Amino acid sequence: MTLLVVSSGKLEVLRNEGRVSSVLPGSQEPGIFLPALGIIADMKTDIPDLHPQGVGRGCNDAEASTTTLTETELASETVFKGRLMHVKCDRVRLPDGRESTREYIVHPGAVVVIPVFDNGDLLLERQHRYPLHRDFIELPAGKIDPGEDDLACAKRELEEETGYTAAEWREVTTIYPCIGYSDERLAFYLAKGLKEGNHGRDHDEFLEIFRLPFAEAMQWVRDGRICETKTVIGLFWLEKMLQQGW
Amino acid sequence: MTLLVVSSGKLEVLRNEGRVSSVLPGSQEPGIFLPALGIIADMKTDIPDLHPQGVGRGCNDAEASTTTLTETELASETVFKGRLMHVKCDRVRLPDGRESTREYIVHPGAVVVIPVFDNGDLLLERQHRYPLHRDFIELPAGKIDPGEDDLACAKRELEEETGYTAAEWREVTTIYPCIGYSDERLAFYLAKGLKEGNHGRDHDEFLEIFRLPFAEAMQWVRDGRICETKTVIGLFWLEKMLQQGW
Repeated sequence: MTLLVVSSGKLEVLRNEGRVSSVLPGSQEPGIFLPALGIIADMKTDIPDLHPQGVGRGCNDAEASTTTLTETELASETVFKGRLMHVKCDRVRLPDGRESTREYIVHPGAVVVIPVFDNGDLLLERQHRYPLHRDFIELPAGKIDPGEDDLACAKRELEEETGYTAAEWREVTTIYPCIGYSDERLAFYLAKGLKEGNHGRDHDEFLEIFRLPFAEAMQWVRDGRICETKTVIGLFWLEKMLQQGW
Repeated sequence: MTLLVVSSGKLEVLRNEGRVSSVLPGSQEPGIFLPALGIIADMKTDIPDLHPQGVGRGCNDAEASTTTLTETELASETVFKGRLMHVKCDRVRLPDGRESTREYIVHPGAVVVIPVFDNGDLLLERQHRYPLHRDFIELPAGKIDPGEDDLACAKRELEEETGYTAAEWREVTTIYPCIGYSDERLAFYLAKGLKEGNHGRDHDEFLEIFRLPFAEAMQWVRDGRICETKTVIGLFWLEKMLQQGW
């Protein structure tokens, strides 16, 4: 048995320690995800660069990987278009040549703002989320308007939802919250130099805003009081930025 | 102006430092989210317990909060039911008494497994995700079958997708990935004492599994190579469990 271990930018091949399988044993692609085919002959154990230039925050990894797992579109149909939600069902070709269908939501993408006061406190929101019939504690966030720039959206959403503007903005990361059934993309921004003003919430947008020390917020992640994906990721990432220079 | 700050289990009221607004200024509810109404008369500044018993990992916070932001169901209709996806559109009563509609996905919930080898390496997957037309690096995960227990599902999914079984299981947390338009719940489990076996993937489930040192995985989160919500949260949480006893 052969096990592939990626370590310090090198691909190492270990034997008799476990089994890593590929469902596509014919695949011969080079790269990070060389399939393990029992004892691999002529395996390159020195892969020059597993962190190539260009594989950065924008998740470009997919381009670098040849795509033996790829499903390709044969036909695409809108099966529901509501006030906000757009659902498609596509007929696809699977990697083994057979056909299947894939149902998913078409989403315009959204931004998440991590607003931090000068003393390190966070600006958070409490909002009712109807699908789960409960309130959640959240970072400010909102959907990107057609043609709108991510940063412009971040600035707009922070001010609309909280009334605050920020003097300093920093792009943080991009996360995909729901890859199984939505093409939603979440662009995270850090906002500092906060200054209060007047909010401009949508008429059916009901929320409360409040201020919370960072350590308290992390405790709320731990005890499950903060349990919503964009907020949990935003807080973990903020801790990395504060403590380890991310 | 009055600002509410939750600090060390006490609610503190600061003046002239910022503005926290409520869209429901008539609200008089006690608790964490007391609305700030300019200068608040008779404000209790000593809230006895902001971490009450029973507000734990399962996100029971909603029950503790009186719900001035709540939207209530007036009517509910299935607007799309596909092979996997179930979309509803409900007519709701907003907090201000008006009506609106809410579109959302009904989801059975899912489990996420954080499989850690004895030496600290992670067992990860690469999988194509059609909605985004690219591959993602992911923790093993899968939907809960009707009537299935979370832990039973975690064990089943780990074995089906990777062939591995685990001797030691620990419940980690519950996260809601997509609260704006889905009722999906993600139950996270740590799996240790891994032992290889044979996978039993679904016929249209194509994926590769591989092993990655933990430090490398965290670097991949930082550089955006790992950028999918359940995996990012699972890795951050694992680091907290390893380093800070979460």
